[in-house]
Amino acid sequence: MRKTSIVLTALLAASASALIAQASANQAAGRTSPSPLAPSEIVAKAPKADWTGIAASDLLVMDLTPDAKGKPRRVVIQLMPPPFSQGWIGNIRKLAAAHWWDGTAINRVQDNYVVQWGDPNADDKAKAKALPAGLVAVPESAYVTGASNIEVTLALARMAGGHAAELAVIEAQRQMEEQTDGPSVGDPYSIATDFILGWPVAGAIADQKVWPVHCYGMVGVGRDLSPNTGTGAELYTVIGHAPRHLDRNIALVGRVIEGIEFLSSLPRGHGALGFYDLAQGDERTGIVSIRLASEMPTDKPFPAYEYLSTESQSFAAYADARANRRDDFFIRPAGGADVCNIPVPVRRVK
Amino acid sequence: MRKTSIVLTALLAASASALIAQASANQAAGRTSPSPLAPSEIVAKAPKADWTGIAASDLLVMDLTPDAKGKPRRVVIQLMPPPFSQGWIGNIRKLAAAHWWDGTAINRVQDNYVVQWGDPNADDKAKAKALPAGLVAVPESAYVTGASNIEVTLALARMAGGHAAELAVIEAQRQMEEQTDGPSVGDPYSIATDFILGWPVAGAIADQKVWPVHCYGMVGVGRDLSPNTGTGAELYTVIGHAPRHLDRNIALVGRVIEGIEFLSSLPRGHGALGFYDLAQGDERTGIVSIRLASEMPTDKPFPAYEYLSTESQSFAAYADARANRRDDFFIRPAGGADVCNIPVPVRRVK
Repeated sequence: MRKTSIVLTALLAASASALIAQASANQAAGRTSPSPLAPSEIVAKAPKADWTGIAASDLLVMDLTPDAKGKPRRVVIQLMPPPFSQGWIGNIRKLAAAHWWDGTAINRVQDNYVVQWGDPNADDKAKAKALPAGLVAVPESAYVTGASNIEVTLALARMAGGHAAELAVIEAQRQMEEQTDGPSVGDPYSIATDFILGWPVAGAIADQKVWPVHCYGMVGVGRDLSPNTGTGAELYTVIGHAPRHLDRNIALVGRVIEGIEFLSSLPRGHGALGFYDLAQGDERTGIVSIRLASEMPTDKPFPAYEYLSTESQSFAAYADARANRRDDFFIRPAGGADVCNIPVPVRRVK
Repeated sequence: MRKTSIVLTALLAASASALIAQASANQAAGRTSPSPLAPSEIVAKAPKADWTGIAASDLLVMDLTPDAKGKPRRVVIQLMPPPFSQGWIGNIRKLAAAHWWDGTAINRVQDNYVVQWGDPNADDKAKAKALPAGLVAVPESAYVTGASNIEVTLALARMAGGHAAELAVIEAQRQMEEQTDGPSVGDPYSIATDFILGWPVAGAIADQKVWPVHCYGMVGVGRDLSPNTGTGAELYTVIGHAPRHLDRNIALVGRVIEGIEFLSSLPRGHGALGFYDLAQGDERTGIVSIRLASEMPTDKPFPAYEYLSTESQSFAAYADARANRRDDFFIRPAGGADVCNIPVPVRRVK
């Protein structure tokens, strides 16, 4: 803990002033002028150096059967980098290489919750599709990650400093005769949140752990009851308000970066938990194939993608603008934003 | 402020202990046994007395054109009670009584944001549909409401007490040699959140105001730039992660209580802001009619609805279970939940 305390002291002043600035924005009635940039404008103006390329080997490409009008439906998923969820992601790479998902289906669409895909017969031992050899069983301890690399260590330090700054601001409030509304404080689900290597995370300062969070579009691993943690063969993505209660209870492995509308606009299932009820007619959508972009036919060039580096000044300005909307439409900046309301910008490389 | 301070002192102990209990739940590793009830089980077991009926005059019924298979698509919206947004809701009652929306359309579907409906030609003065007489212009000050009734006063007192309790818990943490992870604290968008008369709200203790919040399924009033606040003729509903930055910037008037899937699963628009791009073919969905349930033909009986009273013990148990999932699937209760992840249960009256 000593390490945290030291960093905490070092970061206190800066973080506190940032928070107080946020507080004053929170108090501000009208918008400032001249009209500042909207978050999308900040992203559009971000220098090329602030964007980080995504390796083709970290892109999972899911082709669904064409829609009713014969239009193709492609969903592109970015897999998480180390130190996050690599056990499950290793399994997912093996499943993709084995073409295991080809011919499987989207079996569950629950409104304001998740879309889930995999073997439609997974629960029927007699009909279940055999898994490829070499998949590993990942322990529940892998739902969180310790300070195993510099980015995690720095994020934990930022969280500790930010939290300490919040405590200082709140303590200052306590000493005022009249209570005033302070800056936004904390996260209902953790002591603090942050971004690491382009991904939203929450953290526990006491035991120095961080974990990815269930924001809209994040992709996770379906599982049976504990201690089962899932192989990665059964996947889901979030299509509603962030179900943060799933954090640390289930593995996250990536996020949809293109084509989520082909999942989020699917007809809802009317069986238990939003699974399709075959008695009401089979509304399942077929999966033609799932491949790593690095293993796709080279005769069809696949686009490259990049994300706005969460360590960049552009991202800091974007996150601040998301928390304090000052563009013309807004009359009252919130003074804060939850981690899932600051989606990391991702784009095709021009 | 004196009134708040008194209540604050009175509520401090109870709220603090509740929060500390929540904190210890947050620390807890495994689930408790015997397996406690899931939130849905708590709702199912709630006594009839804990449910509050919704007046037919507070239900807005939107019938869309049938889907591709000829199936009817009906969306039921519950309007907010006083003291919330009554200026806009009065306009909406007039628009429904005038059958003004009949023949209009759903013009915008933006993924992870909103579905919006109204006059497709609203922006074209020459073609725009004339509004009925008697609509009022509502001031921006009506985005928030003061302690105008006992429910708001009590909610503000709870918020003040809860926030004071949080400060006490955090101050206690500060005095510990080693920092530990405390209870979930606050809301990134306000000093505190609560529920009033069945609706999620956020509050400002300093100026004694509360306001409804943009959770999934909430219905709001489209508007032009400030000081315009919209008439109520242009409406939208949230179909993604709660866009809380819109709170206090735009009016909320109700929520979808049935049939939201007919909106959330519509094809996404590909024009600016998710409006349909007619150049890509007209994907707009037609609105056959919007009526108050109390003004619908009596030959077709309309179902009655009720919500789980947010002042009831059942709701308190449900909210606690949402914040501390202890049912079998979960291995780690979050120890908190954001106001939009505690949807108020609504059901048809049996």
